[in-house]
Amino acid sequence: MKQKVAVIMGSKSDWETMKEACLILEKFGIAYDKAVVSAHRTPDKLYTFAQQARDNYDVIIAGAGGAAHLPGMVAAKTTLPVIGVPVKSQALSGMDSLLSIVQMPGGIPVATTAIGKSGAINAGLLAVQIFSIYDRTIAEKLTSYRNELMQIVEESSDQLE
Amino acid sequence: MKQKVAVIMGSKSDWETMKEACLILEKFGIAYDKAVVSAHRTPDKLYTFAQQARDNYDVIIAGAGGAAHLPGMVAAKTTLPVIGVPVKSQALSGMDSLLSIVQMPGGIPVATTAIGKSGAINAGLLAVQIFSIYDRTIAEKLTSYRNELMQIVEESSDQLE
Amino acid sequence: MKQKVAVIMGSKSDWETMKEACLILEKFGIAYDKAVVSAHRTPDKLYTFAQQARDNYDVIIAGAGGAAHLPGMVAAKTTLPVIGVPVKSQALSGMDSLLSIVQMPGGIPVATTAIGKSGAINAGLLAVQIFSIYDRTIAEKLTSYRNELMQIVEESSDQLE
Amino acid sequence: MKQKVAVIMGSKSDWETMKEACLILEKFGIAYDKAVVSAHRTPDKLYTFAQQARDNYDVIIAGAGGAAHLPGMVAAKTTLPVIGVPVKSQALSGMDSLLSIVQMPGGIPVATTAIGKSGAINAGLLAVQIFSIYDRTIAEKLTSYRNELMQIVEESSDQLE
Amino acid sequence: MKQKVAVIMGSKSDWETMKEACLILEKFGIAYDKAVVSAHRTPDKLYTFAQQARDNYDVIIAGAGGAAHLPGMVAAKTTLPVIGVPVKSQALSGMDSLLSIVQMPGGIPVATTAIGKSGAINAGLLAVQIFSIYDRTIAEKLTSYRNELMQIVEESSDQLE
Amino acid sequence: MKQKVAVIMGSKSDWETMKEACLILEKFGIAYDKAVVSAHRTPDKLYTFAQQARDNYDVIIAGAGGAAHLPGMVAAKTTLPVIGVPVKSQALSGMDSLLSIVQMPGGIPVATTAIGKSGAINAGLLAVQIFSIYDRTIAEKLTSYRNELMQIVEESSDQLE
Amino acid sequence: MKQKVAVIMGSKSDWETMKEACLILEKFGIAYDKAVVSAHRTPDKLYTFAQQARDNYDVIIAGAGGAAHLPGMVAAKTTLPVIGVPVKSQALSGMDSLLSIVQMPGGIPVATTAIGKSGAINAGLLAVQIFSIYDRTIAEKLTSYRNELMQIVEESSDQLE
Amino acid sequence: MKQKVAVIMGSKSDWETMKEACLILEKFGIAYDKAVVSAHRTPDKLYTFAQQARDNYDVIIAGAGGAAHLPGMVAAKTTLPVIGVPVKSQALSGMDSLLSIVQMPGGIPVATTAIGKSGAINAGLLAVQIFSIYDRTIAEKLTSYRNELMQIVEESSDQLE
Repeated sequence: MKQKVAVIMGSKSDWETMKEACLILEKFGIAYDKAVVSAHRTPDKLYTFAQQARDNYDVIIAGAGGAAHLPGMVAAKTTLPVIGVPVKSQALSGMDSLLSIVQMPGGIPVATTAIGKSGAINAGLLAVQIFSIYDRTIAEKLTSYRNELMQIVEESSDQLE
Repeated sequence: MKQKVAVIMGSKSDWETMKEACLILEKFGIAYDKAVVSAHRTPDKLYTFAQQARDNYDVIIAGAGGAAHLPGMVAAKTTLPVIGVPVKSQALSGMDSLLSIVQMPGGIPVATTAIGKSGAINAGLLAVQIFSIYDRTIAEKLTSYRNELMQIVEESSDQLE
Repeated sequence: MKQKVAVIMGSKSDWETMKEACLILEKFGIAYDKAVVSAHRTPDKLYTFAQQARDNYDVIIAGAGGAAHLPGMVAAKTTLPVIGVPVKSQALSGMDSLLSIVQMPGGIPVATTAIGKSGAINAGLLAVQIFSIYDRTIAEKLTSYRNELMQIVEESSDQLE
Repeated sequence: MKQKVAVIMGSKSDWETMKEACLILEKFGIAYDKAVVSAHRTPDKLYTFAQQARDNYDVIIAGAGGAAHLPGMVAAKTTLPVIGVPVKSQALSGMDSLLSIVQMPGGIPVATTAIGKSGAINAGLLAVQIFSIYDRTIAEKLTSYRNELMQIVEESSDQLE
Repeated sequence: MKQKVAVIMGSKSDWETMKEACLILEKFGIAYDKAVVSAHRTPDKLYTFAQQARDNYDVIIAGAGGAAHLPGMVAAKTTLPVIGVPVKSQALSGMDSLLSIVQMPGGIPVATTAIGKSGAINAGLLAVQIFSIYDRTIAEKLTSYRNELMQIVEESSDQLE
Repeated sequence: MKQKVAVIMGSKSDWETMKEACLILEKFGIAYDKAVVSAHRTPDKLYTFAQQARDNYDVIIAGAGGAAHLPGMVAAKTTLPVIGVPVKSQALSGMDSLLSIVQMPGGIPVATTAIGKSGAINAGLLAVQIFSIYDRTIAEKLTSYRNELMQIVEESSDQLE
Repeated sequence: MKQKVAVIMGSKSDWETMKEACLILEKFGIAYDKAVVSAHRTPDKLYTFAQQARDNYDVIIAGAGGAAHLPGMVAAKTTLPVIGVPVKSQALSGMDSLLSIVQMPGGIPVATTAIGKSGAINAGLLAVQIFSIYDRTIAEKLTSYRNELMQIVEESSDQLE
Repeated sequence: MKQKVAVIMGSKSDWETMKEACLILEKFGIAYDKAVVSAHRTPDKLYTFAQQARDNYDVIIAGAGGAAHLPGMVAAKTTLPVIGVPVKSQALSGMDSLLSIVQMPGGIPVATTAIGKSGAINAGLLAVQIFSIYDRTIAEKLTSYRNELMQIVEESSDQLE
């Protein structure tokens, strides 16, 4: 077990969204690498990356928009868990990204999260939750994180108006 | 680590879809429990189940259709990885199930798969892939499984017409 | 009969929308409490709230966006009328919120209104209309309110161009 | 208080869906009248019906499909609570019915339920839940009904496989 | 034959869109009246208007947004041609308006145009085209108008870059 | 004035839908011609037809499915009123037909009706209603037709259950 | 120039659709190879195929359904024209296939056709039309083919009723 | 072989999008003509243009928005390859443009690209790729272009954060 995550994205413009995943990983002290890997413009990089992924990582987070093939193609070349983040697209607001990522055929799964920043946050958290299965410290940190969230809701409730 | 999965679903009619997840788990020799847990008709069962989930399971697979709240509410009550399967619904073909499951707010992730049986198969595989991070034998079985899929494609290609 | 309404919402950011419901209740002199209750971040608060709701309220108005589980989960834990308001979401403009709220399974109803502020206004009015069944004064106020609306339309018609 | 419900629908073909609402009302011992009232083919009947509704009923349940104007137009002519059921339509599976019913402007609410039979069941239940505010016996019956639902889920869970 | 058109709209905010229809009518010298007539807030005005429409007008243009019931309800109360303009709505960009207007049941037609200003322009033109059946002068004006449009395209083509 | 209608359709398979328009015209004693005119397979026939339309007809009814260009292209070549009927398509249930027909640019109107048979019926009725502007006998027949519809609703209402 | 086409598809179940492309190629006497190449289950075959495509083919036709990555990934690995056919999918009727194929990022084009059999026919024809640029005989055959289509429309028009 | 492309668009406002196609053609040294040709406002120009297209061009790129009939109608009048670019529309973000262009009936193909600028870029590239079948120099330029894209991705990857 490497407890290391790869955060990849199809284009530099996805970074605005995908850095939310990185912030979560940092918050939980999980090591990660980040890179732009375009399924369409750097298909060989994608293949090399995915083929070697198990040597370097435990979980892959892949964000992409439009005809978002990156998560599914990485999933085709590795048996590590791949988490796909549909990035909000210009014309169709990410509905194209979502369907391209989530509608995978039986056999090659992609764990899909919500469109946009919430999805990137949750991709980071899913990775952390996967690690928590074997790592009690991480599980406890997750409990604390949930308590924080609860606290924030409570405080915001008191501040209504 | 328990290497055990819970496969739950919102209604007995979801079993037709969700048993695909169970078949995958059986194929890979992963122990699992299955149950109907309705977010809306048995909310207390859902809470008790989710609250105790970490004592009994490593991964939860939850399938539901329509206003599919089961995966998200289980995710709200545990920090284990929750995989959500959108079951095809009558009027809207599962688009409602998909959006209800995947569009989770930042903080509470649900790993969403495709609508219907492909999604259930992939939910089972995602669980297996999560276990493969720490278990080389499972990782090898996954490689064999992928080889089988490849084989089937090759044979079907020869049979065209 | 308490003639009191609870106005809850999944996140503080929903307040901008949900305060429209409160303004309507104030206009009709209906008492109400308001709170942020997140189905996903404060699930226990949701349960406690919903379980005790009948002791304190007659009607519950619940607004949420995205995978909007709050109205449905409150409805699962109380038999009071629950009115759900789909808050406009970032990527999908509230279509996800609408489907998550309205597509409830048979057995657990949520009275759903329009996406956004119109829906919040109408949630307030639905509560008032429910009270009007037994309270002639409120019924008369509703008639006056409708007359006001009619007046505004008439005046705006004269001001065209 | 009359504790009586009107169940109306835009066309005889909606009866297949709307009788589910009637079955629920019968189950709870709530009196009701049923009629076909077409917004487009019998607009005067609609107006007369809606204008006199408060003299005869406490709650109106209105089902319609396609450009489903019946619930909204009844709501425009009465200040009673109007519950709208989107009937599944031929070409667009009820998405047109849903949007025509739920997207009401601020001022004139329609309490919308799910597309199809689930929606009709829940329309009946919403009426019952509204009566339960003032009628403890009905509230208790609702609790029993929920227990029945729970029971059914539990039994179906034991029957998986 | 009165050669007069009524241009009505569900809310003053629709005027921005609907005045395009009026500009077209003015361009072709067609007399028209304009008014705000809300199906939901002024249902009686709608009925009176529609019932007397044939005495005063030949064609009715009705614009509305959201659960856009105005065109269909006017059509239910008159046998004059009713042209419906789906006004762009806030959350769903007019898709709700379009479906509410166009999906009329067999028996009660509404001649629907495009969402927004193009639809309003074309509603005006449809009225003019209807008059052109019996009025050669109008038919000739329409030919000139088409020539103008052609001219504008030709000129814009020369100005590319 | 010819009081004659052309009913054209993009493919023979549209006849099942479009004959409903013809039945209405027959019911009202309106003369009509019918033909298959494919925008894509017989573009020259379309042009010739549309260019000469005013010599032979007063109103054109055009039905088409999928990328339904027939109504809009006929409208581009004539200034007669063109009524477009979106025929239900195989994959997208007529949503493609509807958008292809209704979303015309400002300047070239197509009066669009509902997807499928209801739309064809209403296309026929719209033509009749256009003739009714100048022909009192037709206007009276329309009133009778509406009375028939009303009668049918009333009778169906009595037959519920 | 090889005047040879590759017809590939993501799964054997796509053959029902894709054989329409082959029938067109046969009709025009264009040589072709056919194979099942799954982007997700045989990613290496896809890469080898696409990388060597220019040595063997001039045009590639690729059909796939759901998260349809095959056309886009082939396009990423060759600079030959790639024609993508969205195969109708189970839950979403091919809307997912269409968006996954057509919404390619700038730089890597896929020439997309309609969902289903019409799209497969047109994919075959597009290949033929591409060859027609340099091959007058093929251009003439295309003209004959169009005449045939025209003939069929004319005959079907005479057979109405 | 003329190695010349026609870039046409339905309205001057489409130029913002369509010039991306021209920039690509210029980058690859491909000659082209550009013009506004409106299917609806200049149908005769469209016919003349399309009928003579083979004398002057090898490939036609046609962009249009809304009820986008231009690409399909050009395709109906020529057997040259026609590439259709769905321009983003105001109300429906180009979904109407996409469906109007891509859902062509079997027999008359339009090679459709993505909504908006990406689609225009790719339309230009598709034309270039078609020429590359017979022109080795162009094929090599395409390889260089792909390398450039790859380079840009690599550099952007190094610049994350």
